[in-house]
Amino acid sequence: MTIFTANTKTEILNYLKKQAPHAKIHFNDQVAQEHSANGKAQSDIQGEILAYVAVGDIEDIRGVLKTARQFHLPIVPQTADTSTVIGADGIDGSIILSVARLNHIKELSPEDSLAVVEPGVINQDLDQAARKQGMFYAPDPASKPISSIGGNVSTNAGGMSGVKYGATKDNILGLKVMLADGRELSLGGRTLKQAFGYNLTQLFIGSEGTLGIITEITVRLRSLPLGDAITGIAFFKDMTALAGGVKQLRLSGLNFSMLEALDGKTVQALDKYEQTNYAKSATSSMLIFGFDDASGSEKAVVEKILQDNQAWGVQITSDKAQAQQLIKLRQDMLPAVFEQSKYYIMEDMAVPLSKLAEMTDYITKVAEEQKVDIYTAGHAGDGNLHPSLLWNDQPEAPDNVKTAVRLLFRKTLSLGGTISGEHAVGMSKNQWTVEELGNDVDQIQHQIKNLFDPLGILNPKRKIN
Amino acid sequence: MTIFTANTKTEILNYLKKQAPHAKIHFNDQVAQEHSANGKAQSDIQGEILAYVAVGDIEDIRGVLKTARQFHLPIVPQTADTSTVIGADGIDGSIILSVARLNHIKELSPEDSLAVVEPGVINQDLDQAARKQGMFYAPDPASKPISSIGGNVSTNAGGMSGVKYGATKDNILGLKVMLADGRELSLGGRTLKQAFGYNLTQLFIGSEGTLGIITEITVRLRSLPLGDAITGIAFFKDMTALAGGVKQLRLSGLNFSMLEALDGKTVQALDKYEQTNYAKSATSSMLIFGFDDASGSEKAVVEKILQDNQAWGVQITSDKAQAQQLIKLRQDMLPAVFEQSKYYIMEDMAVPLSKLAEMTDYITKVAEEQKVDIYTAGHAGDGNLHPSLLWNDQPEAPDNVKTAVRLLFRKTLSLGGTISGEHAVGMSKNQWTVEELGNDVDQIQHQIKNLFDPLGILNPKRKIN
Repeated sequence: MTIFTANTKTEILNYLKKQAPHAKIHFNDQVAQEHSANGKAQSDIQGEILAYVAVGDIEDIRGVLKTARQFHLPIVPQTADTSTVIGADGIDGSIILSVARLNHIKELSPEDSLAVVEPGVINQDLDQAARKQGMFYAPDPASKPISSIGGNVSTNAGGMSGVKYGATKDNILGLKVMLADGRELSLGGRTLKQAFGYNLTQLFIGSEGTLGIITEITVRLRSLPLGDAITGIAFFKDMTALAGGVKQLRLSGLNFSMLEALDGKTVQALDKYEQTNYAKSATSSMLIFGFDDASGSEKAVVEKILQDNQAWGVQITSDKAQAQQLIKLRQDMLPAVFEQSKYYIMEDMAVPLSKLAEMTDYITKVAEEQKVDIYTAGHAGDGNLHPSLLWNDQPEAPDNVKTAVRLLFRKTLSLGGTISGEHAVGMSKNQWTVEELGNDVDQIQHQIKNLFDPLGILNPKRKIN
Repeated sequence: MTIFTANTKTEILNYLKKQAPHAKIHFNDQVAQEHSANGKAQSDIQGEILAYVAVGDIEDIRGVLKTARQFHLPIVPQTADTSTVIGADGIDGSIILSVARLNHIKELSPEDSLAVVEPGVINQDLDQAARKQGMFYAPDPASKPISSIGGNVSTNAGGMSGVKYGATKDNILGLKVMLADGRELSLGGRTLKQAFGYNLTQLFIGSEGTLGIITEITVRLRSLPLGDAITGIAFFKDMTALAGGVKQLRLSGLNFSMLEALDGKTVQALDKYEQTNYAKSATSSMLIFGFDDASGSEKAVVEKILQDNQAWGVQITSDKAQAQQLIKLRQDMLPAVFEQSKYYIMEDMAVPLSKLAEMTDYITKVAEEQKVDIYTAGHAGDGNLHPSLLWNDQPEAPDNVKTAVRLLFRKTLSLGGTISGEHAVGMSKNQWTVEELGNDVDQIQHQIKNLFDPLGILNPKRKIN
């Protein structure tokens, strides 16, 4: 980092310490370095940060922002740092503003069906606290045990339960956010219905730290359902057949809380990892499904549809231990796949439901033609796919992987899909903005960014170009 | 209207005809007058409009906007004109831009769980078309038979099913909107999950025609549930007791699709209207509840909770005809109440669920102290109340009614509620913006308005101040 002289650095540090007296500040040390890049597989590290600042309270946030304005420093908001799209790694000369220490559940009200939390609260901690009071927090990204509600809000994170409960955006009632100029706004509130102002709450959800710093979140909680939980798996000859089954399951009128797909390569990797023998062939694809509020009539309907679609290996259970074993297959999917190779990119796109088969066919074609190892899993019930592209030899993605990603993105868009279903944009995808959203929306996004952050200090180069 | 000379009017008319060749244009005639005020009970008519323009296609909309820019004319977007907050009536010297003729369902795709519609499609028409294909459109405002999807989107309309399926905002996947400058934006899309751009779709939902003209809507459809429909009613000694019951019903884990409350005065009006005899006393309050996907276990759970809360007159049925009779009580509520008096205001506010009893108690207190006839019904499961204030003698609301409304709004805000749950803001409530949202949010709303509509021609004086 050559932007600052040693004297300037010292000046900034002293100013920062004064403005954010309860923050833990790391300048040029091991902690700062760790949070700058955080060992991501992507090789494009964004330079050396100036400082890593773990704030202790809201006033510290205001102080860090004041420092950033004073010295024109980029701020990278960070919580659990689990971004998969280079959304929270350091940028050259930046301050990482971590709100990870702000991790208190301030209120949990079953009566109001809500909780008020600080941004650093881990998703799973919130959910577990809610369950002790007969409630639950629905969004369940794969990162649930390690990712924060603040990050989930910033990226509009999804998860397996999205097929029933939507993404993070569908489970937030209100936010407090601090703008770059230090003003703290209260958006939304504690009511289930709101039709007063422009929906700024939703504007901030998924804004990836580019418009303001999230300081408080009011999430919607739901009462634990009275019905049984039912979990099942089934196998199809390939992803095309699986997509056909998913279509009928979705149209059946049953209210699935999980509808997950793993392709043939993933099932093979899982067989290896779990020492199981599910894969009949290289294309045998697995469906994992579930209901969190079953009435008892689901099993027969599902079995009939699976049979009509030539599924085999069907297991359906309401036994908790057995269900956990089936769900573990989905949870073990990522480690099973990633041990197949040294480096990987896990992609994230969503297509209209009717295009699921066409998209999975295309992924197979691209894998063959580009000679890339692609393992595809996804939230089939949402049309949301996660193809993982693997390689060895070098940290930097080789050309054929880059080409494959580009082809998959173009195909997604041509099918009326989005190249970000639930992982946001970060620096990995913002160069696709015009292709996905068009020139006019791109321009309006910049105008909105400029309205909230006229100095451009909040997570620059992320989300928008 | 004294703003324009006769010559200028002619010039504008000729320009308009050229720019919007497929529009039906009404200048100074009966049709124009009808759409200017539309016989609302509110006496504050906003002056004489310049023209009523029912566009025939998207290019006409662009032409009307061009005309508005050319002559600096206010545009009032209108569809079915069912606003309850003076949101779509004419303003002095304005052009009413009606999209009512754009009422085609362009696509209805069960496979993609969506429909693409023009803004003038009536909510009920869409829902009925969907049901023919095994799907349904969830949001069901009381105005369902007469209000349009475009208007529902513009106001973020709610309804009885909101307790299960949310408001309009929770059922929209994408929008096309035309900005004041004639650019048409595509927002959102056809996928169930989206995490790419800023959520401009949600920014436009509920924006009441102040940011752009909605030209196309992609709504989410759902498969008709397999379970039975169950409908029931129960009576409580007063709204406080009813609110206690609702709290327990909500916490039970049962997934209600309807949870409606009518207070004692409303039940008495209904008894008169229906020639029934439900009211045991002047405070006897009625709960109407339902499930659209029952498993069979609901009845016992509900009955137990109702019994624990001293409810009486419990009827629970899965018979369609009987259910229709019960739902009819809710549907007849408005005519039953409004025939009690000559003039009325129906208000709309939402409070956190735990504050329902306190709010209904306060409404009773205000009615007594201010000597105002108030009938309260509401979507109890959402904390959303509709007190109707009635009076006779003069069209203009008398002082005690105005005072009562003001007191109810202040109380709502003090309880952490919103003074617009599902009817939007219009001109009836925009003077409350700072009190509800604060100065900073008010300022940002103006900045956003200015970004999208720098000339201020789109529905001026509505939603924001």
